[in-house]
Amino acid sequence: MKYYIGMDLGGTDIKVSVISEDYKLMVKHVIPTSSHRPVEEIIADMADAGRKAARKAGLEESDISYVGVGVPGTVDSKTNEIVFANNLNWRNVDFISIFQRFWDIPVYLGNDADAAALAEVYAGAARGYDNAIVLTIGTGIGGGLIFDRKIFTGGGLGTEPGHIIIVKDGEHCTCGSRGCFEAYASLPGLFRETISVMKEHPDSLLYALCGRDFKNLSGRIIFDALKRDDPAAKIVLERYSDYIGTGIASLCNALRPQAVIIGGGISNAGDLLLDPIRKSVESLVFFTDNGKLPPILKAELGNDAGMIGAALFGMAG
Amino acid sequence: MKYYIGMDLGGTDIKVSVISEDYKLMVKHVIPTSSHRPVEEIIADMADAGRKAARKAGLEESDISYVGVGVPGTVDSKTNEIVFANNLNWRNVDFISIFQRFWDIPVYLGNDADAAALAEVYAGAARGYDNAIVLTIGTGIGGGLIFDRKIFTGGGLGTEPGHIIIVKDGEHCTCGSRGCFEAYASLPGLFRETISVMKEHPDSLLYALCGRDFKNLSGRIIFDALKRDDPAAKIVLERYSDYIGTGIASLCNALRPQAVIIGGGISNAGDLLLDPIRKSVESLVFFTDNGKLPPILKAELGNDAGMIGAALFGMAG
Repeated sequence: MKYYIGMDLGGTDIKVSVISEDYKLMVKHVIPTSSHRPVEEIIADMADAGRKAARKAGLEESDISYVGVGVPGTVDSKTNEIVFANNLNWRNVDFISIFQRFWDIPVYLGNDADAAALAEVYAGAARGYDNAIVLTIGTGIGGGLIFDRKIFTGGGLGTEPGHIIIVKDGEHCTCGSRGCFEAYASLPGLFRETISVMKEHPDSLLYALCGRDFKNLSGRIIFDALKRDDPAAKIVLERYSDYIGTGIASLCNALRPQAVIIGGGISNAGDLLLDPIRKSVESLVFFTDNGKLPPILKAELGNDAGMIGAALFGMAG
Repeated sequence: MKYYIGMDLGGTDIKVSVISEDYKLMVKHVIPTSSHRPVEEIIADMADAGRKAARKAGLEESDISYVGVGVPGTVDSKTNEIVFANNLNWRNVDFISIFQRFWDIPVYLGNDADAAALAEVYAGAARGYDNAIVLTIGTGIGGGLIFDRKIFTGGGLGTEPGHIIIVKDGEHCTCGSRGCFEAYASLPGLFRETISVMKEHPDSLLYALCGRDFKNLSGRIIFDALKRDDPAAKIVLERYSDYIGTGIASLCNALRPQAVIIGGGISNAGDLLLDPIRKSVESLVFFTDNGKLPPILKAELGNDAGMIGAALFGMAG
């Protein structure tokens, strides 16, 4: 049996996993990032945490084939440098050389959203598919495109499926462009839409549950209003799921994946949200696999996806 | 020196080329398709035309390493079958087996737009780039995505970059979806926009050049009105180039190619059209290669691109 270490490098903490070659998560070990520290110090901690995780799994260092690291930013697939990681404020970091000063082992780098996508294809909701689009919907839309069971890195700097433009001249996006999928389908997009619906329907249960103050709006409140059949909340659901559906249909028309996986906080709403998304996609997808619509499924691996997927970089990165 | 035969299988004619390994077009030979005939008969003619082309190039059959064929439809990259070719009315054709009954030589199949894209990267406007998006804008938008100097076939059935959705709930597209890039940026999209501008500006030179009858509209008339600084024609140019720019920016944001190539009838307008497209893309592309905007260039190989690219299938397909 072969074993791999996968790390999910976040702005707050670093999740470290030991994975067996049959994609089983054997050990999970978390350390704080303390991202204000010098790069070398953080990377030294990561090497140390990797060794500890191996021991926790009852393994020797030499039992580990390689270490994979998912980075919250852009990795150049040619030079293997971390070009930019916003949350860490890292630029042009030669991560692998530094890591190997502390632990001399093969190291593979990749983007964290790509890692999560890979995990869902090998060990999660997209098991059995070779090609899938995995979207993580939260404050933004992270996404990975997996084709032939490998990460598709586009022109070499990774893909950004959340930044296809779905509304020409539409809302400003945090990326600087306009009308991006993310500007409509992220949580901030949902909240903006919900506030505009509450303005149209000031007598709605939705607005009452907010105590008639937009500042109190939360995902929970939208969910509760929906459960109680509030017509305003239903309008929100219809519009929001149609934005998500439009983005997914656009990606499917262009790239024709076999499956679409949705993760992130939003996906906890389950079929309440996924069913109207499926309906929207069905009305808009036309380049299908012999008439078969790609299934739209909820991600299965949650916050573990990043560290599981990073452990697969060496075999599928 | 190695030699390859590339064929561009069209609804009207079949273009046959002999290409040397340094991508030089040595011979060009064209035969009619007569597409009403049985599949076997057409394929037998293709094998025969390939042999003839080799002789025209002063080569023996055995000097040809393989035959590549670009098909106007969907080729399954796993089974190597032609799944569907609309213009030929072919479905599930096992082309390679049939061809090899007439000429026993390795045969590679692919989509014709992908072939054209490959040709532009190896021997045309995108020489020197490993990754490019090539769009052929005419009645529709054909397109190919080339990454790492190979055709990216998405989920295995080829990609359709013309069918990303750029206007949610927008115009109906011939594909059945709504708001597709193609519905706005194709020639019919240009004409629809032009007619709507003429309705807004009935006193325009543009409308006068049409003899005040929309039926007389042509690309030539729009071009002439532009050359004569007609304000209405300038509005058309601005809107149309912004639709093309939006689609290109969307693809660039998501896939981050190194270059974008535009071919098809539209590209004959040259910088008159490309400059406003560049301006539009510049305002909308935000995921660039270290701040460098991908260049937007005119395709160089014209109608030869398909047969040249097909000849490259065996080395880059």
